[in-house]
Amino acid sequence: MNHRLSTPPRDATLPEALVAALEAMFGERFSIRQAVRDHHGRDESFYDPMPPDAVLYAQSTEEVAEAVKLCASHEIPVIAYGAGTSLEGHVLAINGGLTIDLSQMNQLVALHAEDLTVTVQAGVTRKQLNAEIKDSGLFFPIDPGADATLGGMVATRASGTNAVRYGTMRENTLALTVVMADGSIVKTGTRARKSSAGYDLTRLFVGSEGTLGIVTEVSVKLYPQPEAISAAICSFPSTGDAVKAVIATIQMGVAVARVEFLDENGVRAINMRDKLGLPEQPLLLFEFHGSEAGVQEQAQLVQQITSDHAATGFEWATRPEDRSRLWAARHNAYFALLHLRPGCRAISTDCCVPISQLAECILDTKADCEKNGLVYSIIGHVGDGNFHVLMLVDPSDAAEVAKAEAINARMVARAIDMDGTCTGEHGVGLHKMEFLKQEHGPEALALMRTIKHAFDPKNLLNPGKIVSWE
Amino acid sequence: MNHRLSTPPRDATLPEALVAALEAMFGERFSIRQAVRDHHGRDESFYDPMPPDAVLYAQSTEEVAEAVKLCASHEIPVIAYGAGTSLEGHVLAINGGLTIDLSQMNQLVALHAEDLTVTVQAGVTRKQLNAEIKDSGLFFPIDPGADATLGGMVATRASGTNAVRYGTMRENTLALTVVMADGSIVKTGTRARKSSAGYDLTRLFVGSEGTLGIVTEVSVKLYPQPEAISAAICSFPSTGDAVKAVIATIQMGVAVARVEFLDENGVRAINMRDKLGLPEQPLLLFEFHGSEAGVQEQAQLVQQITSDHAATGFEWATRPEDRSRLWAARHNAYFALLHLRPGCRAISTDCCVPISQLAECILDTKADCEKNGLVYSIIGHVGDGNFHVLMLVDPSDAAEVAKAEAINARMVARAIDMDGTCTGEHGVGLHKMEFLKQEHGPEALALMRTIKHAFDPKNLLNPGKIVSWE
Repeated sequence: MNHRLSTPPRDATLPEALVAALEAMFGERFSIRQAVRDHHGRDESFYDPMPPDAVLYAQSTEEVAEAVKLCASHEIPVIAYGAGTSLEGHVLAINGGLTIDLSQMNQLVALHAEDLTVTVQAGVTRKQLNAEIKDSGLFFPIDPGADATLGGMVATRASGTNAVRYGTMRENTLALTVVMADGSIVKTGTRARKSSAGYDLTRLFVGSEGTLGIVTEVSVKLYPQPEAISAAICSFPSTGDAVKAVIATIQMGVAVARVEFLDENGVRAINMRDKLGLPEQPLLLFEFHGSEAGVQEQAQLVQQITSDHAATGFEWATRPEDRSRLWAARHNAYFALLHLRPGCRAISTDCCVPISQLAECILDTKADCEKNGLVYSIIGHVGDGNFHVLMLVDPSDAAEVAKAEAINARMVARAIDMDGTCTGEHGVGLHKMEFLKQEHGPEALALMRTIKHAFDPKNLLNPGKIVSWE
Repeated sequence: MNHRLSTPPRDATLPEALVAALEAMFGERFSIRQAVRDHHGRDESFYDPMPPDAVLYAQSTEEVAEAVKLCASHEIPVIAYGAGTSLEGHVLAINGGLTIDLSQMNQLVALHAEDLTVTVQAGVTRKQLNAEIKDSGLFFPIDPGADATLGGMVATRASGTNAVRYGTMRENTLALTVVMADGSIVKTGTRARKSSAGYDLTRLFVGSEGTLGIVTEVSVKLYPQPEAISAAICSFPSTGDAVKAVIATIQMGVAVARVEFLDENGVRAINMRDKLGLPEQPLLLFEFHGSEAGVQEQAQLVQQITSDHAATGFEWATRPEDRSRLWAARHNAYFALLHLRPGCRAISTDCCVPISQLAECILDTKADCEKNGLVYSIIGHVGDGNFHVLMLVDPSDAAEVAKAEAINARMVARAIDMDGTCTGEHGVGLHKMEFLKQEHGPEALALMRTIKHAFDPKNLLNPGKIVSWE
């Protein structure tokens, strides 16, 4: 995998007529300054930046539509940009073009508390959304870690720690407003919680990473803030025990809100940084949502199940400050890991397998990391069979980077062999394109290409991502 | 709405070479007998039958692929047929062609109890599935009423009474095997519970009613059989009170497994047939799934909430026989209603709206039925905002049929005005095609047509359903 892309960063090469039209229309919200372009040419991936030729800060669906129309008339690529927190090179302008930054489209359009739905502009972030709806007694559960925009979360089909209970963006997106490749505006779905009225356009855009259209408004489901929340933590002698405890918990029908796995490397990193004194063994963290009696019952049941799987040090807490202390381990894991090897960068990857295969997939991947002498940790949304590998590599050491990429490729092959997927929640971007064929086979990949060709016949929407054009 | 379709039933007009090839390949499982064709030319809709030219009983994905390939080479339409329980004319052979009956594809392919997934051939019915997996401690919750096949349930994006807790086929389908218009075989999805790996082909086929491909295998999520189940029933002075009680229940975060609404006409019909002696007022039926303590807590909470909304006669039960007695009202409603007007047939329609709009939508629809002097009842999966109208009409009375259709059209317009959908779970088939444009607008409808053209360029897969070709 080449992290220095072959196409060099270009000078602003947009046609003069297009630049003039965009400047006339948008004034200072259109920019060709290098700093602005550079900022929009990177995400949280390992790739070197690849800036667009220009950036537009759009403020409405109609503005996005006008800009896309102008670009289409000049056959210039258009890339949607939210918070820049994607992990696989999703927003890199590999063919140049105009990046449309949606972060100023940050208005809550309509909260319908009785219906448990909200409609927002695509640039609203999940934390902003939860802050704005707090007084309604409702919350939006999808939490991918980063404070991503809702538009970005739609684009990557985001999920995160709460997905085991509340689902992913796939299950929680009701309706979208999308600007198509020709600048036309399409509304998909309604605020009805279910529908059998025709092809599911909404879910076709969810996970399409800006390659089929630019999402400008999003309607999502909300949930009542739970009456009570409790958290629990416990340690296991082995990864296998921890995963088996999770399988048993789910098979018992315990509706855990979150269940997170940290391997011993992750625990060690947190101990070093935060002096938590946790046993340096595989760890599970649980969160339960429900009534006072319900969360107590769930925690007790889980204590029983985990102790049947050799867990030790079971602790549980209902007071917010105590819960925060338990969850600090999880929340700080990423930064604690970065401290393990200062000056290095993290290659972060994920995959997802049927849960019965999870222990084996994690253990084989750990063995591979060990054999190759990498500094790494595995952290998982284990209730869904989804885990992340963070590998700390020296970006200037090409051999080490290649080792990490080879481990990633073998992990993906392993997951696919187990009837799993090459990415549970990070998305494809640039970095996982070569794995899609392996996962879906040539027929399904050809179908995806058919859709791309039909929706974006000039290949102008975030070109070169997800599926290759030919 | 014309229930006698303009195309007359045709004689077997398949090309001789095609008939010979299909006979050679499938022997007695290929049939052009009139009785077999007639049986496959109807569903549970109000339409007069429209038989295909021939019927094939397929036994494997490869057989379906071979048959589709043969038909494609002669440009002959192909219609997939499961249990024939669709409600909107989905399986009618309006352009003739070959119907492929999948009911002999009734094998459970693989149960993965630890993963809470099962893979079945498309002809397995939901009752068969639940009977076969009973000993695993798991169950498949989607219950559209009829004992439909899983393939048919995928095709119509089915849901039913349990959807408020467990979701619909949209949320519960993991992976599909699909035969495409050219006879190629595509596998979509994996058994991983979530994925961000490319376009969501699975959900594009879910709800596509056999117009984009023929589903031959289905992998779905399963759930642990609940430790305890309880049921409750209560009556309300008005529809508005009943719906408000449901909104409050859901906003309190009570995870009801089912909550069903019956209007006073439905209750009256059941009383007449089954001598239940229920108050002839709007009624709610609840079901709760969870631990012993959990279902008791939920039932108590719901008793409190419903009594705050003027409910009377609250009864709850945990023993299976008592639960069955309470739910008998709901289960027998359809047949009880048919008894209200012997010799008549039911026109059954559905729509779905944001729940805050549900009472108004139901009340306006009731008023319309009353004004037109129809015998009718409204029954709803009220937790989702989804309700059904059953209108009993004399099929020989064209004026009465027209009245019922006009009421249906006004109900749909009302639902769409409320940001709802023309069908929550029945699907589009023939009967709701004209409403799709109203709901989605010309741009989204054009996108659906783009997909149909790209996937089925010769318009051979269940032609003339969901979206018109031009």
